[in-house]
Amino acid sequence: MIAEIIAIGSEMLTPHRQDTNSLYLTQGLNDLGVSVAFKTIVGDNRQHLVDAIRIALGRADILICSGGLGPTEDDLTRECTAEALGLELHTDPTTLLTLQQRFVARRMAMPSNNAKQAELLDGATLLPNPNGSAPGQMLDTTVESHRKIVVLLPGPPKELKPLFDEAVKPRLADTLPPRAMAKRLLRMALIPESQVDARTAPIYQKFTDVETTILAGSGEIQLHFICTKPTLEEAQARVDAVTELVEHEMGDDIFSSHGESLEEIVILMLGLHNQTLSVAESCTGGLLSERLTRVPNSSRSFYGGVVVYTNGVKTALTHVPVELIEKHGAVSEEVARALAEGVRVAAGTTLGMSITGIAGPTLMGGADAGKPVGLVYVGLADGEDTQVKQVQIPGDRERVRLWATQHAFELLRRRLQ
Amino acid sequence: MIAEIIAIGSEMLTPHRQDTNSLYLTQGLNDLGVSVAFKTIVGDNRQHLVDAIRIALGRADILICSGGLGPTEDDLTRECTAEALGLELHTDPTTLLTLQQRFVARRMAMPSNNAKQAELLDGATLLPNPNGSAPGQMLDTTVESHRKIVVLLPGPPKELKPLFDEAVKPRLADTLPPRAMAKRLLRMALIPESQVDARTAPIYQKFTDVETTILAGSGEIQLHFICTKPTLEEAQARVDAVTELVEHEMGDDIFSSHGESLEEIVILMLGLHNQTLSVAESCTGGLLSERLTRVPNSSRSFYGGVVVYTNGVKTALTHVPVELIEKHGAVSEEVARALAEGVRVAAGTTLGMSITGIAGPTLMGGADAGKPVGLVYVGLADGEDTQVKQVQIPGDRERVRLWATQHAFELLRRRLQ
Repeated sequence: MIAEIIAIGSEMLTPHRQDTNSLYLTQGLNDLGVSVAFKTIVGDNRQHLVDAIRIALGRADILICSGGLGPTEDDLTRECTAEALGLELHTDPTTLLTLQQRFVARRMAMPSNNAKQAELLDGATLLPNPNGSAPGQMLDTTVESHRKIVVLLPGPPKELKPLFDEAVKPRLADTLPPRAMAKRLLRMALIPESQVDARTAPIYQKFTDVETTILAGSGEIQLHFICTKPTLEEAQARVDAVTELVEHEMGDDIFSSHGESLEEIVILMLGLHNQTLSVAESCTGGLLSERLTRVPNSSRSFYGGVVVYTNGVKTALTHVPVELIEKHGAVSEEVARALAEGVRVAAGTTLGMSITGIAGPTLMGGADAGKPVGLVYVGLADGEDTQVKQVQIPGDRERVRLWATQHAFELLRRRLQ
Repeated sequence: MIAEIIAIGSEMLTPHRQDTNSLYLTQGLNDLGVSVAFKTIVGDNRQHLVDAIRIALGRADILICSGGLGPTEDDLTRECTAEALGLELHTDPTTLLTLQQRFVARRMAMPSNNAKQAELLDGATLLPNPNGSAPGQMLDTTVESHRKIVVLLPGPPKELKPLFDEAVKPRLADTLPPRAMAKRLLRMALIPESQVDARTAPIYQKFTDVETTILAGSGEIQLHFICTKPTLEEAQARVDAVTELVEHEMGDDIFSSHGESLEEIVILMLGLHNQTLSVAESCTGGLLSERLTRVPNSSRSFYGGVVVYTNGVKTALTHVPVELIEKHGAVSEEVARALAEGVRVAAGTTLGMSITGIAGPTLMGGADAGKPVGLVYVGLADGEDTQVKQVQIPGDRERVRLWATQHAFELLRRRLQ
């Protein structure tokens, strides 16, 4: 069984907005053992939409359309699906009443256009939408002697997602052969994709029944493993077998063996080791703190920190001596060391971390003149010893800032491990 | 002239990865007066891809394919385009030599598979790719007596973007009728989309030759205006006319009249007013600082700040009295006031800002028990007077944090204005 997803709306054909519903729908379809073979994005144009639906009916078993179910003249999904299938629409009286009651409750007259939201494809099942005015619909039909399942869903994600999960998925599961899917996600930081692939391909290629995907981006490598079998036990056993071998090969380069983010792992390990953390950031400007505090309840282990974006503040908030900055420059091993030690004492934590570097673009003078964009020092102080790591990060301002925090987290994780 | 973009690669049919090249390509095509009518995403499957290309040739004048130009067996774009067009491929000797030299330079033998990257559609123009091994190609041809322009581009954005800008756009501009496009982007924060639309629609609807798009998200509303005319002067005049009226209507709700981000505007206004800023953040955990430091050279006006994620650190770093926190709770008007005043003095800036709130999910005890998730106080101190604003932000942790920073920036912007 293969599926096609059609996202409907002219705004998704502009440079500003993208279809994202299809990622969610794909996940849900994959859970049921259904692959998505095509995605189409089409505007609010009657002929374009009818053609796109006809093409999808010709090449996919399951067609999910999102968007175009509103009350305006631009909302054409119902009419165009009916035309493509050669079916009629009829008004569902209960839905019409519900729509009218919405307007009565607001003491407004319902514009006649809105009645079209109560129109249902002949033979379709109505999927009531508790989060909006446009209900979904689902049709199990035959086109040229092939079975086709057609689903129409509203475009807003907060309407589409619950409707798909609660109304569509269970109905699809009832009609499709039972499949169970097991998944694992291993994550690694600061290691080239080519190296991960060279070391792991000889392992995962032997597991032809496990689908392996390597994704690289944002300073990390993700290894996704998916296996589908008649029972969950069988699927899980295969995924566990391949991940065990890959984990053995990659060792502690793997920071997460069940999909946790690097900041979640760091917060977890701080808690396990009864350590508390504060941070002093210069070029990352708060990103390190912001990432740590994305984790709910991180305040048990992360107390806070300082953003020391100017030299005066480095001295005022973390007591870095003026002379030290003048002598070595703000971006130096010595200042990284003083920042980590200074924030640790100021915040009263067991560990202090620091980042100082040149994120660029820059026209710096003074002591940091001549230092290259991307030069970053990461410091870690524990009260007895302070470790400083120097790295050179290629790329633009945003990339340097992100990778600097990856280096800081990895330094901390490996220390705690 | 309408265009279709086909993104090729099975990874874009998973829940994990999305086509983003099409946004960039759409922008470039729009610049030339070409609309994108369809986008298709298809996997590395020969039959699926041939069919998708045939369908696109049947409904669009310009077809841009991205991806599938690599050396592996999964890279099928060249073969499938040739098959769909009924053309042959031939080897371009110069490209083949360049490929071979790449391997010689690395002292490696070139795998025979790689030679396919030198294959060119009969009649196509080669587009050399300085950033990768796969060149692009462009074909101006006739299919069933309709003119069709077919462009094949490599998938990696850092290869596709320069190739499109430097090789494809100028060639398209030469073939298409001259068009000039003027654009403006107005941005507003913390105002409902429906209100913006109700107030501005009566204005922009009169400008039928200006395309107006309202986008809402991440705590802001964007109003995009685009006009295409034979000359830039005509287009600019129309865009200026509609934006002038909209700016008059929305007044200082508009924070940006040329597309600048809210943090850029805040940094700009701090500089204009010779003010310097420091911030103390609790629930936003560094996000406010991080956003300010996204702006290059922000250190002229933004000195730094503190992330005070625990009560002890609020006292240690910003001298908020323990008794104040015990009496009113960390999330209170009083503590927001003390944080803003405390960080201003500690960092030695003219202005101090603070954010304290409940981002959730939470099981807080003590003085903040019973306070709802989403309750946020934003403080602004200037040494004479301290203003504190209380807001209640709906949504999840991530949304509360983002909107809290929007409120802080808006409080500051309106003070400086």
